[in-house]
Amino acid sequence: MSLIASIETGGTKVFAAVAERENPHTLIETCRITTTDDPDRTLGALADFLAEHHRFSRIEAIGVASFGPLETDPASAQYGWITTTPKPGWRNTDLNRAFARLDDVPVAFVTDVTGSLLGERWNGAAVGLDNLAYATIGTGIGVGVMVHGRLVTGHGTPELGHFLVRRHPADDYLGTCPFHADCAEGLASGPAVLQRWGRTAAHPEEIDILAHYIAQLVLVTTLSVAPQKIVLGGGVMKTEGLLAAVREQAAVLTNGYLGVDHPLQNPGANFIVAPGLGDLAGIHGGLELALGLL
Amino acid sequence: MSLIASIETGGTKVFAAVAERENPHTLIETCRITTTDDPDRTLGALADFLAEHHRFSRIEAIGVASFGPLETDPASAQYGWITTTPKPGWRNTDLNRAFARLDDVPVAFVTDVTGSLLGERWNGAAVGLDNLAYATIGTGIGVGVMVHGRLVTGHGTPELGHFLVRRHPADDYLGTCPFHADCAEGLASGPAVLQRWGRTAAHPEEIDILAHYIAQLVLVTTLSVAPQKIVLGGGVMKTEGLLAAVREQAAVLTNGYLGVDHPLQNPGANFIVAPGLGDLAGIHGGLELALGLL
Repeated sequence: MSLIASIETGGTKVFAAVAERENPHTLIETCRITTTDDPDRTLGALADFLAEHHRFSRIEAIGVASFGPLETDPASAQYGWITTTPKPGWRNTDLNRAFARLDDVPVAFVTDVTGSLLGERWNGAAVGLDNLAYATIGTGIGVGVMVHGRLVTGHGTPELGHFLVRRHPADDYLGTCPFHADCAEGLASGPAVLQRWGRTAAHPEEIDILAHYIAQLVLVTTLSVAPQKIVLGGGVMKTEGLLAAVREQAAVLTNGYLGVDHPLQNPGANFIVAPGLGDLAGIHGGLELALGLL
Repeated sequence: MSLIASIETGGTKVFAAVAERENPHTLIETCRITTTDDPDRTLGALADFLAEHHRFSRIEAIGVASFGPLETDPASAQYGWITTTPKPGWRNTDLNRAFARLDDVPVAFVTDVTGSLLGERWNGAAVGLDNLAYATIGTGIGVGVMVHGRLVTGHGTPELGHFLVRRHPADDYLGTCPFHADCAEGLASGPAVLQRWGRTAAHPEEIDILAHYIAQLVLVTTLSVAPQKIVLGGGVMKTEGLLAAVREQAAVLTNGYLGVDHPLQNPGANFIVAPGLGDLAGIHGGLELALGLL
């Protein structure tokens, strides 16, 4: 039996899984590690999990979906490094150090949202689509994009979570992004919700504020890359009623410009959707990425 | 001698050119037609120009770069139609009617900015780049995008000119877009400049306002599709000092997020550039498009 491994490096936790190469949709073992401010400790625990499996059944390939900014250019000497992240301790962190004990296992790196996009396209809410976006609204906000069946990659991309949204008139919160204060991530990410309202979920009357920002993200994504579907994942999107509010707001903001038949104009359309794999989208994407290396 | 033709349908004028198939970079004859509110009249004059050349030397193929929204899906029955444009008289206009007298000449349609992008990539400021954006800041604002050497197309795209910019604090102009009032196009297009200040060019102290909006467009384009270069064309960009101001503002807005080495962070970088072909980018793109049909 040979294995493939998938790793999702999130701002809150690292999630790792192994699967049989011949049966890649079934996670045979998983492991969750808290993402501390000490990458050595976090990546050390991850290395232990991988080494333990590698001892008995060879891990043939690893797919990594990580928070960023992440160097995703395989030609770069820093391929697999987290670069300018605001996350304490993680700036310029080489994720490859977690794989040092696995001999020369091939590893592919994508951003966290790209990993989720691959998972949703592999066996989630967007199977078979070639023009697709996956946005996560969680610890951070990020958007993964596929155009013509190929991932959009490149320096600092996809990083649409940091565009400057227009503020909701009833929102006087300053924003949490250390680079831009009140960009999309600064106003609608999980930490922004927590700091603004002192709790992890918005109350019903506050949902309109979040929907206003997330709908702008959806609009800008649609205007730039014309996806056939936009999957919205991440912890904030679990807020009850938020997905429906985003659909409503997106129609209001688009205001007919793309024609009345455009799905953005129709809140009932199956265009802005929740992830079919829930929180497992990224880990499945990593497995598909690992398979692609073999 | 056989000919190819290129047509650029703009909000102000229609520009047509013919070239020899064997020598496609040289325009052998051109024609400018005012874009009136009567498409029959405008397209009739265009048909006359084409028919006149077709009588003597067969026109083998035509490339059209048009203002939009334009149906760019060749599989659609409305391929080559201008759909929901706010331009008076032009809603649901079939551009193919200009070619009825040319027998069965093959015609390819792209949006105006996509045409300019193709021209700049063919023999302008972005030769050979596979990840590229061309934005026009003129009668309207639009962005053409190429990813991995393929154009990003699809319903209503590229239409990034209509994203909701954050307003400049010193700008109380309401905006000119009939759909969104103060989206990017509503605040920084030529008509917005004219209506706000009563003249076609911003004064030096007003440039900061335009640069604020155009830099946001540049930022959002970079964050979504990571181009290797962004070409900024259109009449508004001819304002002296505006390109330099956009480069400065883009660095301010990005604020280090993409790393200090990212060209967006360096106003001196050759990343945000003027079109190498000037106003001829679109017409050259149409010729390349026509060649591609043969």
